Amino acid sequence: MAKFPQPSKFPVGILGATGAVGQRFVQLLADHPWFEVSALAASDNSSGKTYEKACHWLLTTPIPEKLSDRVVQPAETGLNCQLVFSALPSNIAGVVEKEFAQAGYAVCSNASAHRMEADVPLLIPEVNPDHTGLITIQKRQRNWNGFIVTNPNCSSTELAIVLRPLMDQFGLRKVAVVSMQAISGAGYPGLPALDILGNVLPLIEGEEAKLEREPNKLLGNLTGQQVREANFVTSAQCNRVAVREGHTECVSVEFEAKPSIEQVIEAMESFRAVPEVAELPSSPARPILVHREADRPQPALDMTVSGGMITHVGRVRTDRLLDVRMVVLGHNTVRGAAGGAIHNAELLVSQGWIK
Amino acid sequence: MAKFPQPSKFPVGILGATGAVGQRFVQLLADHPWFEVSALAASDNSSGKTYEKACHWLLTTPIPEKLSDRVVQPAETGLNCQLVFSALPSNIAGVVEKEFAQAGYAVCSNASAHRMEADVPLLIPEVNPDHTGLITIQKRQRNWNGFIVTNPNCSSTELAIVLRPLMDQFGLRKVAVVSMQAISGAGYPGLPALDILGNVLPLIEGEEAKLEREPNKLLGNLTGQQVREANFVTSAQCNRVAVREGHTECVSVEFEAKPSIEQVIEAMESFRAVPEVAELPSSPARPILVHREADRPQPALDMTVSGGMITHVGRVRTDRLLDVRMVVLGHNTVRGAAGGAIHNAELLVSQGWIK
Amino acid sequence: MAKFPQPSKFPVGILGATGAVGQRFVQLLADHPWFEVSALAASDNSSGKTYEKACHWLLTTPIPEKLSDRVVQPAETGLNCQLVFSALPSNIAGVVEKEFAQAGYAVCSNASAHRMEADVPLLIPEVNPDHTGLITIQKRQRNWNGFIVTNPNCSSTELAIVLRPLMDQFGLRKVAVVSMQAISGAGYPGLPALDILGNVLPLIEGEEAKLEREPNKLLGNLTGQQVREANFVTSAQCNRVAVREGHTECVSVEFEAKPSIEQVIEAMESFRAVPEVAELPSSPARPILVHREADRPQPALDMTVSGGMITHVGRVRTDRLLDVRMVVLGHNTVRGAAGGAIHNAELLVSQGWIK
Amino acid sequence: MAKFPQPSKFPVGILGATGAVGQRFVQLLADHPWFEVSALAASDNSSGKTYEKACHWLLTTPIPEKLSDRVVQPAETGLNCQLVFSALPSNIAGVVEKEFAQAGYAVCSNASAHRMEADVPLLIPEVNPDHTGLITIQKRQRNWNGFIVTNPNCSSTELAIVLRPLMDQFGLRKVAVVSMQAISGAGYPGLPALDILGNVLPLIEGEEAKLEREPNKLLGNLTGQQVREANFVTSAQCNRVAVREGHTECVSVEFEAKPSIEQVIEAMESFRAVPEVAELPSSPARPILVHREADRPQPALDMTVSGGMITHVGRVRTDRLLDVRMVVLGHNTVRGAAGGAIHNAELLVSQGWIK
Repeated sequence: MAKFPQPSKFPVGILGATGAVGQRFVQLLADHPWFEVSALAASDNSSGKTYEKACHWLLTTPIPEKLSDRVVQPAETGLNCQLVFSALPSNIAGVVEKEFAQAGYAVCSNASAHRMEADVPLLIPEVNPDHTGLITIQKRQRNWNGFIVTNPNCSSTELAIVLRPLMDQFGLRKVAVVSMQAISGAGYPGLPALDILGNVLPLIEGEEAKLEREPNKLLGNLTGQQVREANFVTSAQCNRVAVREGHTECVSVEFEAKPSIEQVIEAMESFRAVPEVAELPSSPARPILVHREADRPQPALDMTVSGGMITHVGRVRTDRLLDVRMVVLGHNTVRGAAGGAIHNAELLVSQGWIK
Repeated sequence: MAKFPQPSKFPVGILGATGAVGQRFVQLLADHPWFEVSALAASDNSSGKTYEKACHWLLTTPIPEKLSDRVVQPAETGLNCQLVFSALPSNIAGVVEKEFAQAGYAVCSNASAHRMEADVPLLIPEVNPDHTGLITIQKRQRNWNGFIVTNPNCSSTELAIVLRPLMDQFGLRKVAVVSMQAISGAGYPGLPALDILGNVLPLIEGEEAKLEREPNKLLGNLTGQQVREANFVTSAQCNRVAVREGHTECVSVEFEAKPSIEQVIEAMESFRAVPEVAELPSSPARPILVHREADRPQPALDMTVSGGMITHVGRVRTDRLLDVRMVVLGHNTVRGAAGGAIHNAELLVSQGWIK
Repeated sequence: MAKFPQPSKFPVGILGATGAVGQRFVQLLADHPWFEVSALAASDNSSGKTYEKACHWLLTTPIPEKLSDRVVQPAETGLNCQLVFSALPSNIAGVVEKEFAQAGYAVCSNASAHRMEADVPLLIPEVNPDHTGLITIQKRQRNWNGFIVTNPNCSSTELAIVLRPLMDQFGLRKVAVVSMQAISGAGYPGLPALDILGNVLPLIEGEEAKLEREPNKLLGNLTGQQVREANFVTSAQCNRVAVREGHTECVSVEFEAKPSIEQVIEAMESFRAVPEVAELPSSPARPILVHREADRPQPALDMTVSGGMITHVGRVRTDRLLDVRMVVLGHNTVRGAAGGAIHNAELLVSQGWIK
Repeated sequence: MAKFPQPSKFPVGILGATGAVGQRFVQLLADHPWFEVSALAASDNSSGKTYEKACHWLLTTPIPEKLSDRVVQPAETGLNCQLVFSALPSNIAGVVEKEFAQAGYAVCSNASAHRMEADVPLLIPEVNPDHTGLITIQKRQRNWNGFIVTNPNCSSTELAIVLRPLMDQFGLRKVAVVSMQAISGAGYPGLPALDILGNVLPLIEGEEAKLEREPNKLLGNLTGQQVREANFVTSAQCNRVAVREGHTECVSVEFEAKPSIEQVIEAMESFRAVPEVAELPSSPARPILVHREADRPQPALDMTVSGGMITHVGRVRTDRLLDVRMVVLGHNTVRGAAGGAIHNAELLVSQGWIK
């Protein structure tokens, strides 16, 4: 475990600290080897209260003791830190994150507001660590002291991780994905219980468009000043199911090459992050775990492995329309949200973007 | 409602009457205008007991009073009826159904054992009512007095109903389907609670093969002595979700023609059974209901419409890989099992195969 | 089924028509033999829209066709009817229901605002049909043209129905009840899915106080100008569980007399409403159904019997602390809410309070 | 953490290692500081296979690597260890556990077969560590080289832990408990999904009798040769709810003394195990955690605290019939099953019964 930033940890702030994703940030940062939470910020409604009073804590580990009495601040520049994690709702994130970046903060955002802007890195350390190169361009073009880096939507994250070694080895033409997503992805209060108990909701507003677009940017090439998006085509259909944590995706892929099933499995199993990334505190030993049991992966059983940072694959088999199909499963609020943003911040430290 | 077989109703038997599908037969036949349950048959374990004692009743309406004291008979020929419905487990159905057909009974089976045999009709009244023509061939070839007719697997039924008007009007090339299926499809005791509560099971043993094959036979042409299967290709991925009743399917279709979305919707909405079928007691007024609300259909809300015999469609929209995608929902134990078999029996009566 | 108010039906209005209970009123009144919905009223947010547009319909039967295009009016006096059903939230109901009563309307309210006021009948037709006598006192004391009648909280309703014959025959001393209540009792959006999926919530704000108080008023005696509350003592502990419809209650009772278990069962099974009540359209043939199977009643199986108006009892057995314990189950949004209010209105018509 | 038995760990066996509780034993013993799993035993059906092949693993952590290839042995004496944990089904446990004890093994059993036998300790380390004194009597009376020690039923465990300090400080007269129990308590395959999804099952066969009896033995006094059971009276009503792990109990208590609510809370919060027990590896720092938030404890949120070995209490308040009521929650397969048996074994080592 690389520990060079020690002994003094980086002070970090959390914007939107009281919401469902904000709580995950608090939980995952509580004992982080490199970062120390120095500021909790949220909407006017919460600011001024202690964190414990301001938030309806939803996680299965208790509120970290050292933070429960911390007074929540307004989500405005002036926080005592250099790096902020943003778990703000997208409608607010657009403006507020800009203000922080302009004021010199490094912003690691989980919000969708800036993800698809040409000079903003959409980042997964194992997938496209070089896309941080956009930061230089972003700062220059926008004349900012700070910058914004984003992580993709939860459903895009697990898909992009799985597609990375497949595209590299076999080339991608088409991807069809049908998702069965957990309720925690909708935040809190989020989904009304009557909408999902004993039910399937065949619509998640805005989700399909993200899943059809973000992986192409993630798997694109940064050449010169911009990312050239990968040119495979994705069809996404998104559903909500009665699961607390973990998005399951049925994925079919058409390749340029025609690999065997065993080659496809081998490509995913042997996939490793570059050494610089592999050493980050949040990196799982292997990015992808391919299950051989016929009935796995399952959200009720597989979500705690590697702290939720590993991506699960199962049922890799021949497809009758495209080439190969499989089941993909990832932790939507860890790897697909707060954990992903923290992982990105670790990369920024490791690459020297934050000092 | 056609009532010509009245006043004396056809006596019918139910094989496997104590199981989950058997109970649906009992429920749906209790007040049937044409049929009267004259025999309840089940495994040795149940026979000799009253129906009430022999079965662990799982439905939300009470056991029909006139049947609760009926003594369950062994599933052997000698039952006092001419027509039997089979809800037998597939491993037993193969042999037992043959014995009944040989002995002169008309067998309407929900089991998969004989579905794909060349001279056995796989039947949905709205989809392929003419396939009953195979009965003549079956009786001649097998030298039987009776015959076997089958209804498809629950997940195939709703798909085939939706594909019927689409194939007729636009031609079918490719179908991709990912299902999210209810637990009642696994019978009783069926799925252990620990396998599905708060979970998605990404495997239903044997289901994908059925869904990739049965619709082609259903939509095939009966020419001369045999059914020529329709030649579109289907890819099916089947999942179990925490829903009691109702299979949801995300379906993408590639057509020979290139219809607009509105033409596709219009084709499904205007689809009607042939008059002979439309008059059957179990036929819904319209086979397909296309929902316009963005978040429908939903199993928790749509399963009781038309007694569970209608097929629901929603979210009809352009696909990025094939042509059109949509969400399909059907009642798996009514339309997709017992209700489908009864519907077939009504067709047999109407066409004069049973007198 | 008594149909004397025919052929012209009573025009009725629904206040709070777009909420979860309001929708039940719309559903249950759609084909009511005595009442015809002439006005749908709701908050400013909804008024002016068609009913279909204004409400997020949550029930398993479609919106009644004749009402889907009806324009929602503001919840203010001036509605074209003589009787209004109130499904208003309690904080609003207090004032608005008064205005309607003052303006001459008969108000049948499901809200808790006025239930415990001394001159307001808290009413279940099978339990205390004579308490309508308070109407005269209410109108005189308040100098109103109209009046307010209320039905109890969902969890109180099923308990009071079961206690009625037990108190009459054996006298009541103590009642201990622990409830496991359905999510629909919290309205819509109501409970966040994350609060209840795979969980038990051991608190329902305000519920225990209602359940410890309302049955005493319901089972009290109207003597002279007031109801003398029954003097048994109740302890209530209320929990929310992952069930859509149906409140289950574990109930223990101490009697003045010491009946045998069979006498207790017999008292509940032979309980009948007075003839005047038994003839109301919504009255079930028998108010209480005592199950003999050891594992009943169950919300997933028993909620549709008698349209949800019957109260289920099971597992009647000796208690080790009080005398007898049992499991009670009732439909919380039908019998315990909209159905109960409509039942009360039928009683008002039958007794001549509305003409 | 006491580590005196180190460096060489005690070799232990697990009887019934492939079932749901057996898997918990395997999980909890994988890194145990004192015990090393040397034998996995199960029914004939499993023996001879590797553990991985023989069991349908249901836990969220993977099968411990060092055990996955271990060959499962028959559940017969001859296992290479001195201590066996029994997760056998009760019908088998009766005979098999006796054989092992006779053959000289120390048996720590989670089965109910021997729990209420006069010379068999029913044991919770924090509650009655001195009851191990029965071992001497048991060995003498039965002329055995080994002996049997048992832990109580899951629903009894959490209740007895909470009652211990209350009885000690205030005396107990009456206890009323209504439980809402998790599905994992029924083992695997256990409960059919159709029985519990969206449902409450108001019956758990045999459970109420255990809960009304076991706490009295646990809280009894060992005087001379036998345990004199505590003489409070318990009424228990047991329900199954749609929760994976964690039994919630609504508990009312009548005391001999009349403590204030704050005194009751204080008694539970200040309760500590005797030093000998407090130092055992599985002992939580405090046996009972009293929650102050109005809506806690909750199984979905509180089950992982202290590895599932702590007992949760909330909503401590005045009761209207007895004196005090509260909500109790414990982990049924950890503290209430495998974890409890391991905890007992630790006590046996610490007290010198195993060397």
